[in-house]
Amino acid sequence: MKQTLENLAELLGGKPDSALGNPEITGIASLSEAVPGDISFLSEVGDKLRNIHELEKTRASAVIASEKAKDLKIPSIRFSNPYIGFARALEFFRPEFRPRPGIHPTAFVDESADVHPTAIIGAMAVIEANVTIGEKARIDSGVVVERSASIGMNTRICSNVTVRNDCVVGINCIIHSGSVIGSDGFGFTKTSEGHLKISQTGNVIIGNDVEIGANVTIDRATMGSTTVGDGTKIDNLVHLAHNVKVGKRCLIIAQTGISGSTVIGDDVTMAGQTGTVGHVTVGKNCVIAARGVVTENLPDGSVVSGFPCKPHNEEKRIMASLRRLPDLMKRLRELEVRVERSSNEK
Amino acid sequence: MKQTLENLAELLGGKPDSALGNPEITGIASLSEAVPGDISFLSEVGDKLRNIHELEKTRASAVIASEKAKDLKIPSIRFSNPYIGFARALEFFRPEFRPRPGIHPTAFVDESADVHPTAIIGAMAVIEANVTIGEKARIDSGVVVERSASIGMNTRICSNVTVRNDCVVGINCIIHSGSVIGSDGFGFTKTSEGHLKISQTGNVIIGNDVEIGANVTIDRATMGSTTVGDGTKIDNLVHLAHNVKVGKRCLIIAQTGISGSTVIGDDVTMAGQTGTVGHVTVGKNCVIAARGVVTENLPDGSVVSGFPCKPHNEEKRIMASLRRLPDLMKRLRELEVRVERSSNEK
Amino acid sequence: MKQTLENLAELLGGKPDSALGNPEITGIASLSEAVPGDISFLSEVGDKLRNIHELEKTRASAVIASEKAKDLKIPSIRFSNPYIGFARALEFFRPEFRPRPGIHPTAFVDESADVHPTAIIGAMAVIEANVTIGEKARIDSGVVVERSASIGMNTRICSNVTVRNDCVVGINCIIHSGSVIGSDGFGFTKTSEGHLKISQTGNVIIGNDVEIGANVTIDRATMGSTTVGDGTKIDNLVHLAHNVKVGKRCLIIAQTGISGSTVIGDDVTMAGQTGTVGHVTVGKNCVIAARGVVTENLPDGSVVSGFPCKPHNEEKRIMASLRRLPDLMKRLRELEVRVERSSNEK
Repeated sequence: MKQTLENLAELLGGKPDSALGNPEITGIASLSEAVPGDISFLSEVGDKLRNIHELEKTRASAVIASEKAKDLKIPSIRFSNPYIGFARALEFFRPEFRPRPGIHPTAFVDESADVHPTAIIGAMAVIEANVTIGEKARIDSGVVVERSASIGMNTRICSNVTVRNDCVVGINCIIHSGSVIGSDGFGFTKTSEGHLKISQTGNVIIGNDVEIGANVTIDRATMGSTTVGDGTKIDNLVHLAHNVKVGKRCLIIAQTGISGSTVIGDDVTMAGQTGTVGHVTVGKNCVIAARGVVTENLPDGSVVSGFPCKPHNEEKRIMASLRRLPDLMKRLRELEVRVERSSNEK
Repeated sequence: MKQTLENLAELLGGKPDSALGNPEITGIASLSEAVPGDISFLSEVGDKLRNIHELEKTRASAVIASEKAKDLKIPSIRFSNPYIGFARALEFFRPEFRPRPGIHPTAFVDESADVHPTAIIGAMAVIEANVTIGEKARIDSGVVVERSASIGMNTRICSNVTVRNDCVVGINCIIHSGSVIGSDGFGFTKTSEGHLKISQTGNVIIGNDVEIGANVTIDRATMGSTTVGDGTKIDNLVHLAHNVKVGKRCLIIAQTGISGSTVIGDDVTMAGQTGTVGHVTVGKNCVIAARGVVTENLPDGSVVSGFPCKPHNEEKRIMASLRRLPDLMKRLRELEVRVERSSNEK
Repeated sequence: MKQTLENLAELLGGKPDSALGNPEITGIASLSEAVPGDISFLSEVGDKLRNIHELEKTRASAVIASEKAKDLKIPSIRFSNPYIGFARALEFFRPEFRPRPGIHPTAFVDESADVHPTAIIGAMAVIEANVTIGEKARIDSGVVVERSASIGMNTRICSNVTVRNDCVVGINCIIHSGSVIGSDGFGFTKTSEGHLKISQTGNVIIGNDVEIGANVTIDRATMGSTTVGDGTKIDNLVHLAHNVKVGKRCLIIAQTGISGSTVIGDDVTMAGQTGTVGHVTVGKNCVIAARGVVTENLPDGSVVSGFPCKPHNEEKRIMASLRRLPDLMKRLRELEVRVERSSNEK
């Protein structure tokens, strides 16, 4: 996979800056771990180059960088969004390993299941009755796909995932290890004999191009479907309760919990360890900052934080005020004494 | 399963209101998804009908509703607790699929295990030495039940669950996929060579009629047992540490964590993302509101929230005050200036 | 395993206090569950004996206790750190069950894998191509070790764990059930067509003497390695994002989440349900109290709590002040009225 910088730039769709040389690139590594021959990556956060301080010491032969980065003393390939170049370079130099198609001899596939001949079924995987596994789908070792579930084309289900009965996973998805799609929703009603279970008879429908992290739980709907929209990405240990509807292209970061029947609009970001109460609607393009809890409907474009969540700027002001609270109490006491004394003096 | 409304009411133990007709009911669906022939469900929160606005547009032929609901312009079956009627209707129209009894040819059952002939052992399941599997118990695909564990009558262990050695699960329980019963407690002591492990030699005992969500972790006791009482329901991604004792009929909502040796009384509700410190006792009938953290013993019937948890009403007042804190600081500053000025004027 | 108290003390490395007798000890149990013949354990928190009130009623024949504990009316074995004695006594009376070495007939081991003859491979376990399993390592039922991963000597991988491709687990480790080592990091970049995945091509390296709880998720690095240092202990349901570096001898309690590229120094304690933002550094010997969120770099030895985290004492003062906030508002209002009135009087 050896390529000159200029050729590599063309392959990746970036602009070469070879004024300082056109080295042969043979691999990719971080600035601190690169050896000669490697291309590396100059990350940025907003307009700030995050790791530019590492550039001086790097042994990399070139970097992928923003077209705006100035005075790089190293050959580079430039992109308006350098993360796109980085993603393409990783795919080029470190292509994903793909086992040969076919069913592993230790797997169990029910005779009524419809497994596409180009699909991969891993060791000890279980494909129950009436399951459909699409073209080039990959089911890794120890996965259980329960009866009548369906896995779309090109989707990868990683080791030890459970897809419960009747659930539907779209195309080009990745579900990471240990996740559970279609567990029962938490539905009970109180009776004189204790909590009576309300059967959870619906399913989960995952759209296309969805990625779901490790040990996530997505409960099936009581009736109908819990849904995750196309292009949404969910991090590890997230919980979606029954009848939740998550829109398209959302980002839901680790350890977030979304309560029952809540609706999350398109392009919403829920940061780490956030939550929502049940039966609320979060509008499109909302951002819930880390640890925020949504307690009421949010209009499109809201940026909120805290519990109960408030406009992010208000929450930040409150957080800043909080640090002055002990001082505030002291000042109030002093003022009370002063007013009291002044009143006594009259 | 076709039934007239009146017959169905009798089967479900409700009162038919057929003044507007006695339609044939053939299925069940939500108000928005129902088609003619379906019965639907009018949910309520306290005395409020949650989804009554959907009633006008529904295509359902009838609804299950509270006996208090007025002016429904559709045939109905009434219940004092309509959720009970809903639960029964779901069971009637959508009975749970049940595989035939027996051991799947790909399962491994140790010859010393005692599996009841009416039990179901799924594909790739592992039943280790000296395990007992009760009458009509159902062990799904990929489950591991380790040596000397015991699963009670009618209990269902869902795909890819792990029940560790010596743990006991009662009758009529459900444990959802990915959960781990009997992992080691987090017990170490600091020594000059680092953290020394304290063997976790006890077990977990789950009572009867307990439901445990997906990817829950319940640690075994150091000695003795971590216990979950009869009728308790635990949601997804909950953590119970070693030697915890949870009472009967508790509801523990998703992502809650209960620290070591804590005792939770009967009929306690812990809302989502709550927590406790270790070695505290939560009295009977307590309610811990969402995100609350129990930091000290709570008397029976406490309703608390916040961290550290406080009486719920106090926490609500504090939360309301917080939003006025930046304004408060401004007012204090103004008052200080005013008092200062007034003092200078004298 | 019957031993007199004095002999047992010698075996465990403690000092016998047999002034009140030298009973035969045949087992170990908690004070409340012990029967005659058992030795029990008097726990302590700091200088406080936690369960000394149970001593009066116990049926135990002896206790393991701190050398500082006074006036115990029962024979005892004393240790400067009684938890060390307790740990040794548990190992003595309740040694861990160990299956015979060898590969279970239902396991799948790829012919290119290198499994030491003294290792144990459990039922339905999957050992993929080019995996290395070290001397006396124990891989329990249903575990998946993906291609080119490596498990060190004496390490135990509990049932239904997933170790993803290319990850490395050191020696003397324990990874509890349901955990996932090496899932993809959450790496995407926004494009006009949605979120583009950035391949996660690195791995996870777990040091020696590490214990990882149940249903933990540790993501692989984008490039390079996510690492956990020697002697670190991680509780259940913890999340480590990609490129995180955790130092040696850390304690990371349940449900904590550490965001991408964050560096945790040696000997750090992160209490339950804590978190960090990404790209920060936590110095050595820091303590993050329960629920705290690290939002900026912390110098060595910091003791912090709250969100954003602050010095623990400051946070405690703020928390205390908060409870007086509604009262504060009332007092400010009264003072305002008083000042207003006094100003009007002039």
